[in-house]
Amino acid sequence: MQGQAQQQAYDRGITIFSPDGRLYQVEYAREAVKRGTASIGVRTPEGVVLAADKRSRSPLMEPTSVEKIHKADDHIGIASAGHVADARQLIDFARRQSQVNRLRYGEPIGIETLTKEVTDHIQQYTQVGGARPFGVALLIGGVENGTPRLYETDPSGTPYEWKAVSIGADRGDHQEHLEENFRDDLTLDEGIELALEAIASTSDEGTAPDGVDVGTVSAESERFVELSNDEIESYLEANDLLATEDDEQTEE
Amino acid sequence: MQGQAQQQAYDRGITIFSPDGRLYQVEYAREAVKRGTASIGVRTPEGVVLAADKRSRSPLMEPTSVEKIHKADDHIGIASAGHVADARQLIDFARRQSQVNRLRYGEPIGIETLTKEVTDHIQQYTQVGGARPFGVALLIGGVENGTPRLYETDPSGTPYEWKAVSIGADRGDHQEHLEENFRDDLTLDEGIELALEAIASTSDEGTAPDGVDVGTVSAESERFVELSNDEIESYLEANDLLATEDDEQTEE
Amino acid sequence: MQGQAQQQAYDRGITIFSPDGRLYQVEYAREAVKRGTASIGVRTPEGVVLAADKRSRSPLMEPTSVEKIHKADDHIGIASAGHVADARQLIDFARRQSQVNRLRYGEPIGIETLTKEVTDHIQQYTQVGGARPFGVALLIGGVENGTPRLYETDPSGTPYEWKAVSIGADRGDHQEHLEENFRDDLTLDEGIELALEAIASTSDEGTAPDGVDVGTVSAESERFVELSNDEIESYLEANDLLATEDDEQTEE
Amino acid sequence: MQGQAQQQAYDRGITIFSPDGRLYQVEYAREAVKRGTASIGVRTPEGVVLAADKRSRSPLMEPTSVEKIHKADDHIGIASAGHVADARQLIDFARRQSQVNRLRYGEPIGIETLTKEVTDHIQQYTQVGGARPFGVALLIGGVENGTPRLYETDPSGTPYEWKAVSIGADRGDHQEHLEENFRDDLTLDEGIELALEAIASTSDEGTAPDGVDVGTVSAESERFVELSNDEIESYLEANDLLATEDDEQTEE
Amino acid sequence: MQGQAQQQAYDRGITIFSPDGRLYQVEYAREAVKRGTASIGVRTPEGVVLAADKRSRSPLMEPTSVEKIHKADDHIGIASAGHVADARQLIDFARRQSQVNRLRYGEPIGIETLTKEVTDHIQQYTQVGGARPFGVALLIGGVENGTPRLYETDPSGTPYEWKAVSIGADRGDHQEHLEENFRDDLTLDEGIELALEAIASTSDEGTAPDGVDVGTVSAESERFVELSNDEIESYLEANDLLATEDDEQTEE
Amino acid sequence: MQGQAQQQAYDRGITIFSPDGRLYQVEYAREAVKRGTASIGVRTPEGVVLAADKRSRSPLMEPTSVEKIHKADDHIGIASAGHVADARQLIDFARRQSQVNRLRYGEPIGIETLTKEVTDHIQQYTQVGGARPFGVALLIGGVENGTPRLYETDPSGTPYEWKAVSIGADRGDHQEHLEENFRDDLTLDEGIELALEAIASTSDEGTAPDGVDVGTVSAESERFVELSNDEIESYLEANDLLATEDDEQTEE
Amino acid sequence: MQGQAQQQAYDRGITIFSPDGRLYQVEYAREAVKRGTASIGVRTPEGVVLAADKRSRSPLMEPTSVEKIHKADDHIGIASAGHVADARQLIDFARRQSQVNRLRYGEPIGIETLTKEVTDHIQQYTQVGGARPFGVALLIGGVENGTPRLYETDPSGTPYEWKAVSIGADRGDHQEHLEENFRDDLTLDEGIELALEAIASTSDEGTAPDGVDVGTVSAESERFVELSNDEIESYLEANDLLATEDDEQTEE
Repeated sequence: MQGQAQQQAYDRGITIFSPDGRLYQVEYAREAVKRGTASIGVRTPEGVVLAADKRSRSPLMEPTSVEKIHKADDHIGIASAGHVADARQLIDFARRQSQVNRLRYGEPIGIETLTKEVTDHIQQYTQVGGARPFGVALLIGGVENGTPRLYETDPSGTPYEWKAVSIGADRGDHQEHLEENFRDDLTLDEGIELALEAIASTSDEGTAPDGVDVGTVSAESERFVELSNDEIESYLEANDLLATEDDEQTEE
Repeated sequence: MQGQAQQQAYDRGITIFSPDGRLYQVEYAREAVKRGTASIGVRTPEGVVLAADKRSRSPLMEPTSVEKIHKADDHIGIASAGHVADARQLIDFARRQSQVNRLRYGEPIGIETLTKEVTDHIQQYTQVGGARPFGVALLIGGVENGTPRLYETDPSGTPYEWKAVSIGADRGDHQEHLEENFRDDLTLDEGIELALEAIASTSDEGTAPDGVDVGTVSAESERFVELSNDEIESYLEANDLLATEDDEQTEE
Repeated sequence: MQGQAQQQAYDRGITIFSPDGRLYQVEYAREAVKRGTASIGVRTPEGVVLAADKRSRSPLMEPTSVEKIHKADDHIGIASAGHVADARQLIDFARRQSQVNRLRYGEPIGIETLTKEVTDHIQQYTQVGGARPFGVALLIGGVENGTPRLYETDPSGTPYEWKAVSIGADRGDHQEHLEENFRDDLTLDEGIELALEAIASTSDEGTAPDGVDVGTVSAESERFVELSNDEIESYLEANDLLATEDDEQTEE
Repeated sequence: MQGQAQQQAYDRGITIFSPDGRLYQVEYAREAVKRGTASIGVRTPEGVVLAADKRSRSPLMEPTSVEKIHKADDHIGIASAGHVADARQLIDFARRQSQVNRLRYGEPIGIETLTKEVTDHIQQYTQVGGARPFGVALLIGGVENGTPRLYETDPSGTPYEWKAVSIGADRGDHQEHLEENFRDDLTLDEGIELALEAIASTSDEGTAPDGVDVGTVSAESERFVELSNDEIESYLEANDLLATEDDEQTEE
Repeated sequence: MQGQAQQQAYDRGITIFSPDGRLYQVEYAREAVKRGTASIGVRTPEGVVLAADKRSRSPLMEPTSVEKIHKADDHIGIASAGHVADARQLIDFARRQSQVNRLRYGEPIGIETLTKEVTDHIQQYTQVGGARPFGVALLIGGVENGTPRLYETDPSGTPYEWKAVSIGADRGDHQEHLEENFRDDLTLDEGIELALEAIASTSDEGTAPDGVDVGTVSAESERFVELSNDEIESYLEANDLLATEDDEQTEE
Repeated sequence: MQGQAQQQAYDRGITIFSPDGRLYQVEYAREAVKRGTASIGVRTPEGVVLAADKRSRSPLMEPTSVEKIHKADDHIGIASAGHVADARQLIDFARRQSQVNRLRYGEPIGIETLTKEVTDHIQQYTQVGGARPFGVALLIGGVENGTPRLYETDPSGTPYEWKAVSIGADRGDHQEHLEENFRDDLTLDEGIELALEAIASTSDEGTAPDGVDVGTVSAESERFVELSNDEIESYLEANDLLATEDDEQTEE
Repeated sequence: MQGQAQQQAYDRGITIFSPDGRLYQVEYAREAVKRGTASIGVRTPEGVVLAADKRSRSPLMEPTSVEKIHKADDHIGIASAGHVADARQLIDFARRQSQVNRLRYGEPIGIETLTKEVTDHIQQYTQVGGARPFGVALLIGGVENGTPRLYETDPSGTPYEWKAVSIGADRGDHQEHLEENFRDDLTLDEGIELALEAIASTSDEGTAPDGVDVGTVSAESERFVELSNDEIESYLEANDLLATEDDEQTEE
């Protein structure tokens, strides 16, 4: 690799390669993802779990206003990490694609199909000039013909399919936690617990019920549902993850 | 973080990320917000309060010409802080969206819906080249089906929902004042008083009636109304916040 | 604030913010305004006065060709300071908007309405790339339903309403003169005298009748009229402001 | 003012202001005007005179090919100084505007009207990106309802009305000559003589008949006519301005 | 050749040549290809083999989600190396061209025809401004009228036809292995073995069945088929290439 | 004038003026003209002569392929000097304009009219961004109502009319030769001889018949004709200008 | 001429001239031509010969995939040297122009006509911004009304007609060989031999039959045909040019 002065020569133009074949703007957009609080996805035979760390900036902010888990279609949820306003653009895009699919083909869009439409859209912002890449990663989880699927999109526009995955801050630690504790035969409940444990694993003070969002799509219902604060509290309590006081932290 | 020379290498192009994943132009636009006098929003069960510090540049300037609180629709008011001309663009945009909603669906636009249409519009100016971001933050307050709602938009295009919030100069001090004094069961009158106190908390000389604007949307009426100078004077007097002389200050 | 080398890094691109949230190109356009000779507006209960210093560059130049006061509509006059060619563009824009209003609504355009259409137009040139801001400030004065109104537009696209105001060279001194001498109950004649005195206050040699333009819109007539040289001479003479000789100065 | 290194930072982009509010590209375009040989206009009660110094680059060049005086319409002539190819563009523009006026309103275009259409066109090239300003100044002279009018356009797009004026090389000396010798009651013949004297005042060797062009619009005829070489020779001889030999000089 | 400072002067603009006639951006895009894991193509009289090294980044990632071999049409497969999101764009382009051909001419597209439509598309991104080149190479393999064909596309947009070829990481070693072991009379089975051996030749730990993708188009069927994990395992086992443990490596 | 470093600051952008009012790109385009071999035009009462030095780069190159004299219309010929490919563009433009004139007005285009349409086209490339100026000068010669006319266009877009003129390499020497030997009463034959002598004046080895092109438009025929090699040889021989051997030189 | 630092100041923008009137980007594109293997054209009374050196990069690459000679129309062949992907663009352009000509006029396009349509297309890429020049030279050979014609196009867009010519690597040596051995009365067979000898003249190891492509258009048939490997081998053998072993070399 080259020194820093060298790197600077190639990282300020979105549409150019560096001499070693890298797209620095895309790599910097990945840093924007790391600046956001984590989202975690877990796929179990019984369904897909999406969980998001949404610690609030202020006690007066409505916890619900930090939206990190979104319904894309009846059978699909999306969790994000990174630049919030960018996430909204992509989620709106995903919703429109889902609706178009229903109108055109009279059936729900496939999880992989939707993921690839989103990543193709992201890729355009890394190749054509006049705009910057999206500074956000998404977890797209859903159930398709009874089979749970879990995908990740990154700022380069590459789609990945996962059994369990973390995006955003502390990805390294979270992913390690998932690798150590994931089992192919998790129940949906165990999937929720695993996701919450992973988030809690990088926090000393435990987690407040309104400091996380959890959404699931069960294989049976094929419906995206968000857990209520009470339900989340039960899971946290049962797993000894509940914060002892309202010690919330500031996300930049 | 990097040194200053480093920073300069990444902060002059709107559509690029810095190596640590930041969008400097958006952060600088946030500085433009801080250069403007404060606006404050308070949400009570009885309605939403918007208040704005509008200290004039000169005794010959008409106080009413410093417009910081605007009616967006019958049931929605908007307060701004930052670049005045930019604020006018966004408020015009919000008004058009409100009218379109009435025409299309025959009903008033939702507060969250309007907020997100505005933030999506703002986001475009942070990703696509050829323009700079908006140097303004907005407070969008209104009542929707009897429920008061209060949102903030920032220059990145992120929407936040608040119980009480301050934007513009002295945000830190104002927000601290709000956090210490906000109660979930405030009356609308107490909400007005809290907002005026917060503004006054950073001024040594008290506040003149024409140095602030106050607007409310009560849960009952679902109508945005601006307080008259006399009404404001009553509130200031009752709370010992009235300026003893016409000692107005210059905003840049 | 930063040093000069720092400033230069952020002042050459129209669509970018500096780290402290300023738009340097807009601030430089304000300097262009200061390079132009002054225009002054005074609002009295009897009507609005616009006066402009139009000292000529050469004895062979027709004084009337230095146009600083323009009729925008029957009931509205506009005075300018700064880049002359830019002023013409905005005044043409204002005239077109006035005509459109008459055609569409069958009535004269409001003074505030017109001002805001002009400032919204100006704002676009400060946010969207491919053009520079307008290097001119305007005073828009008129009578609306019997009420005199006086507005200022600046290069950022911000509208201000004034009782009395000066734009262009020596704004500081002129404004001070206005603040010291303005009264809310001035007659229109006294308004004219105040404006002429303010202009004369920064000139040692007095003022020649063809070195100023004066226009008024009286509350009674609601008609914009320009004073003749003889009328101006009477005012100057009566107030001891008449230049003793034709000692004209060069404007850049 | 700033030093040279400072100036260079602001003079290479057409659409930007310098910190002291100047548009350097427009000022440099004014230098292009000074690089061209002079044109002079004189307004008398009997009509308008346009005269142009058109010293040729070579004895084999047709003197008539150095066109500096043009007919814009039956009643309007235009003289130019500066970048020749740019002048042609503006004169074509002026001719089209004149024809459009005749077609639309069935009457000859006013001199001031035409001038302002030309200056508005010029202004666009100083504000909108993607092109440079016009490097040429024009004198637009004509008779309107029996009244002679004489206007100047400069590269900023500002219109000026003059009694007598010089553009191009040696403007300072020529203008001084005009100021010393102009009288409001000149006959048209005396106007021609004054213009020729002014041109000759900066030449040591006198003027050759084919080294100048002279055009007039008399108040009586309201028709633009160019003087023949013989007529010019008579004027030169009568005023002792005739070059003793064909000592022509090279214009860059 | 020139030194490094020299090179930097010519490598940051996509549409320019360096003094020695090179297009550096295209050469850097070739580096992006080398950063991807290898894909290998082998043409035998019995059909074409495409094989891809797809070592996963994490044990929780679905191996199937690293897609490096794609079906372009019934009779054509495409393997890629390099920037994954770019590859998807080109493969989508290839699929659309294949469909268009069937619609227009009622017959499957020729392998060479398709290759050249893809390379012409790639070339545009190396000559016209506003976008960067594609950072990906493709192997396009298929059967046309019973004849197996194997093509490569590179980031410059040049098409090459091969008997056996490797793209991506370790191209040098892989190609050497192919040159030493390729025979014109290979069976399709031997082709698959050669491809797998080539990939294994640069790995110390052997290859896991889900660490490679293999697709073939046999001359007889003219149908693209992908091998199952079991089939791949059989080939690996038979050739002593099977990894002894799940020792997967991270691709950047 | 300024030093070299200064000059470089202003010569790389086509659409900008230097501080002394020059357009460097246009001046550099004039250098491109000087890099081309010479073309010469001579106007006599009997017709116009165009002659071009077209020394070939190689003995195997067809002399006719170095086209420097072109027929624009029946009555108009054009000779060029400078960038060959640019010349072709302008000549195509001239031909189209000639045809359009015939279609629209049913008569041949005037020589001056055509010249000015060409120069207006050239001027656009010196003012509007996105393209460079034309690096070529043209001589446009023809007969109009029995009168021979000879014009030059230069890269700035300025038209000049000449009695005799040279463009391209050695313009200084050729023009001097023309000035010393041109007479207003030349016959067409003498005009051809003068042109050939001028070209030969800067060559030590004489001129080969296929090293020059000669075209004429006689006042009588009003038809453009090119001389055959034999005719040219006769003229060269008669004037002792014939090269003794085939000693051709290389043009860059 | 200037030093290297000087040169760099003018060679990175496609649309600008250097102070000495050169277009560096076009000159660098000529270097790209030299980086490609040679193509040679020979015109004889019996027809035109095109021959191309196409030494392969690898023994596994299909020799036919290095396409350097193409059929443009029944009666026209094109050989290229330089950037392969650029060549394909121009050849596609030439084919489309040929087809358009047949459709419009019902007859085959002229060789010169086609050449000039191609060069005009090339010129656009050297004058208008937003794209780089084509890095390729072409030889366009064909027969028109029984007459063989041979043209060259270069990256500036200049057309040349030749008796015999070489483009690409070793042009100097090849052209020298052609100049020494070309005769106006060559038979087509002798033309083929001359072309092959020229190519072999710069190779020490002789030429393999699949290391060259040869195409001809005979005056009699007016049909473009490519020689088979066997035919080429005969020519090579007969002229002692056959490589003794398969010692192929790598083209970059």
